[in-house]
Amino acid sequence: MESAFPTAARLGLHVLLYSSLLLNALFLAHHFLSAPPAPSPLLSEADNGGGGGALSWALRAARDAESVAAAGCSGHGRVFLDGIVGQDGRPGCECNTCFEGPDCSVRTPDCTVDADSGDPMFLEPYWMQHAEASAVVVSGWHRMSYRTTDGLFQSVADDKQIVFATGSMQLINALVYALSPDSNSGSTASVVATTPYYPAYRTQIVLFDSREYRWAGNTSMWAKASGNSTTKEDVIEFVTSPNNPDAVLHQPVVGGSSAILDHAYFWPHFTHIPAPSNEDVMLFTTSKLSGHASSRFGWALIRDEKVAKRVNNYILQNTMGTSRDTQLRMLSVFKAILANLHGKEDIFAFGHDVMTAKWRKLGAVVSRSRRISLQNIPPQYCTYFDKIREPSPAYAWVKCEREEDSDCSDVLLKAKIITRSGVWNDASSRYTRISLIKSQDDFDLLLERITEFVDAELTAAGSNSM
Amino acid sequence: MESAFPTAARLGLHVLLYSSLLLNALFLAHHFLSAPPAPSPLLSEADNGGGGGALSWALRAARDAESVAAAGCSGHGRVFLDGIVGQDGRPGCECNTCFEGPDCSVRTPDCTVDADSGDPMFLEPYWMQHAEASAVVVSGWHRMSYRTTDGLFQSVADDKQIVFATGSMQLINALVYALSPDSNSGSTASVVATTPYYPAYRTQIVLFDSREYRWAGNTSMWAKASGNSTTKEDVIEFVTSPNNPDAVLHQPVVGGSSAILDHAYFWPHFTHIPAPSNEDVMLFTTSKLSGHASSRFGWALIRDEKVAKRVNNYILQNTMGTSRDTQLRMLSVFKAILANLHGKEDIFAFGHDVMTAKWRKLGAVVSRSRRISLQNIPPQYCTYFDKIREPSPAYAWVKCEREEDSDCSDVLLKAKIITRSGVWNDASSRYTRISLIKSQDDFDLLLERITEFVDAELTAAGSNSM
Repeated sequence: MESAFPTAARLGLHVLLYSSLLLNALFLAHHFLSAPPAPSPLLSEADNGGGGGALSWALRAARDAESVAAAGCSGHGRVFLDGIVGQDGRPGCECNTCFEGPDCSVRTPDCTVDADSGDPMFLEPYWMQHAEASAVVVSGWHRMSYRTTDGLFQSVADDKQIVFATGSMQLINALVYALSPDSNSGSTASVVATTPYYPAYRTQIVLFDSREYRWAGNTSMWAKASGNSTTKEDVIEFVTSPNNPDAVLHQPVVGGSSAILDHAYFWPHFTHIPAPSNEDVMLFTTSKLSGHASSRFGWALIRDEKVAKRVNNYILQNTMGTSRDTQLRMLSVFKAILANLHGKEDIFAFGHDVMTAKWRKLGAVVSRSRRISLQNIPPQYCTYFDKIREPSPAYAWVKCEREEDSDCSDVLLKAKIITRSGVWNDASSRYTRISLIKSQDDFDLLLERITEFVDAELTAAGSNSM
Repeated sequence: MESAFPTAARLGLHVLLYSSLLLNALFLAHHFLSAPPAPSPLLSEADNGGGGGALSWALRAARDAESVAAAGCSGHGRVFLDGIVGQDGRPGCECNTCFEGPDCSVRTPDCTVDADSGDPMFLEPYWMQHAEASAVVVSGWHRMSYRTTDGLFQSVADDKQIVFATGSMQLINALVYALSPDSNSGSTASVVATTPYYPAYRTQIVLFDSREYRWAGNTSMWAKASGNSTTKEDVIEFVTSPNNPDAVLHQPVVGGSSAILDHAYFWPHFTHIPAPSNEDVMLFTTSKLSGHASSRFGWALIRDEKVAKRVNNYILQNTMGTSRDTQLRMLSVFKAILANLHGKEDIFAFGHDVMTAKWRKLGAVVSRSRRISLQNIPPQYCTYFDKIREPSPAYAWVKCEREEDSDCSDVLLKAKIITRSGVWNDASSRYTRISLIKSQDDFDLLLERITEFVDAELTAAGSNSM
């Protein structure tokens, strides 16, 4: 395959030298089950704060950042450096859903709660508490060059290659491309996933519509369709573990396929970790690890060097790698995470506490209902925490139990709760997904609405039985 | 077309409120010919520096950044926050090509000069000189949310839509997708460009291999092949203006086609601006505007709302928008550029000075040669500078004049200069591209090698004529 960038190979050496972020990411992705790592030289240097003199060029930016951060927004919003302009011409509060007013202090009356998107805002308080460790100053001349930005991979421990990407979204199609037959072979790979699955697998494959692969539906449909066929077929199976939307840990089900293990949620704040994952092709994202969804940073661990090269070539052609600004920020985020692993400021312990509390509260309300139910997740032993842990899924996978409630998301929408219908996951509309990883405000309002919904059901049942 | 993200429409309002960066980018892209803009409220607020109290959480990051920036690296390298680790365990110097040693003070003996990549390092000194204005502090909790990150477009002046992307690389395929027939139509668009063209047009289309479009070669090949055909065909023409590699301003040549105007280099540091561009589909990138290649930030201006929606949907599916960290940094960069437009610190005046000097020096050396020649670029009136300006192309498009020098990049490689063969541009190997936008070190070394090359030619010619 030809490349538009004949210099790529020559950049290899430089990239090999640049390894802190790569190694940290890999460590997190792959080895977080072990004891806390020894602090790296960079970490201890950062803790010491560098030189102690007065600031010069960075002072203005530091003051601006602290100035906007100081705005309270009543605890229901925040001010951003690049945010909306308030009534006084200065950056203004951006309020959480269902809050309004210049300082976000007003509850929007009769507001519809949004529990739709997988926006990982539950970790925002963690980063506010670790402001000093995670802040980073980007100078105007920081790494302007393409060099070292183009996501070249390197050999690492366990004989895996790592490839950076613009979020795990970019990796979906990049990995399918890399695992598909060569364009000269004339054959077409079938891409499948097990219901209920993350819809972007399907929508990406359909949208990009490559001649080398096609969307072949969910695994059971595919098995039925190909059952009597004797043709040897290339199959690429997406295996989301734990699964979005229902949090089940999955293994590949199609024998002999190329499996892509989507480990976006394979972190101790969402699931027990039975053992380190060691599959041939795995993808990860900071969105669900540190909560930095908007940074668009993902990575793949790939055993086969040829596959990794194809992924890398795809990323180069698609976006010339991933933003170096983001890589700098992620380095400070990862360093802060690593410095606190297994300590009292462990991000996973923080996240697990938040998510367990949400699941417990939601479960207590829904258990009173016979109209809706949640998936059942037993407590399980987790190798990271070295104990039995309470469930803490990212999403509630809600089933509407009444025959007439065949459109469950519509049922909840009438109760002023926006959820994501199971139809998106190629599942029945009797199911719908409630996001639990949004902000505490979002959850508190959700719990209010769900409580109203269940109370109304019980009141109605009570009057019926009278 | 279905979307995996049913909430996208609901995010519209929020994005409409967030407009500074969008408007600035548009302004730069489209209106830089007029007088300097009135400073925005955000600008004057930034100039005042915000609150004046002592710093707290941002201090450590600010000190770290100033500490690494203070390293001199002998003027032939720099230290980065996320850089390599030096011999003392602290971040070490990363040296320019052909320089080495812990402080980059050692010239690599007999070094081969790299004039291959279009790495826009010539603007690095500008940002070092504007350190205070362009620095930005990214807090750990800065805009973690997907909200406002997903590149939704908005209506702007002149009835154009703007779509953000992960560099203009991502826009190449996104725009071709958006201009291609719908997948249900059964027809396939032909994508063409005029030789010599930027190779990523071809390599992306071939790599992604969509059923809706195909690479149809250069425009003259395509015209020949389709000349006798009566079939109405969808054609998408890439028009790079000014052109990479030869700096010629181009117009579409295929009548009735959908033209994509690639304006990556349409800035006064590279070309005269005869008039504002007002095409239906135009793409831009910060790489060649501010020099921030590694940030991967590009944008398209699109007249047709339906086309813009399709581009936006592609970007959402491909990468869920572009890094918010990068958008924050680009905002401070764009604000610094705008604040200095037409003043004595104008980035375009700076860039034009640097690039004109390079072109003049290179031209003086090459004019002594009969073995190689450069493209001819006359001085032209520029509406931005309101005067006749000297040429300052991003690349020299070198022709080897001797019959036996049929592989021009190889001829120069033997003279220890890495260039990019015209073969990449679908042109003759008799041509090769020399990048002039890399660092001053790169150019100085290039000039040394070119001078040696021409001197050798003249010496040989002298002895032959004796």
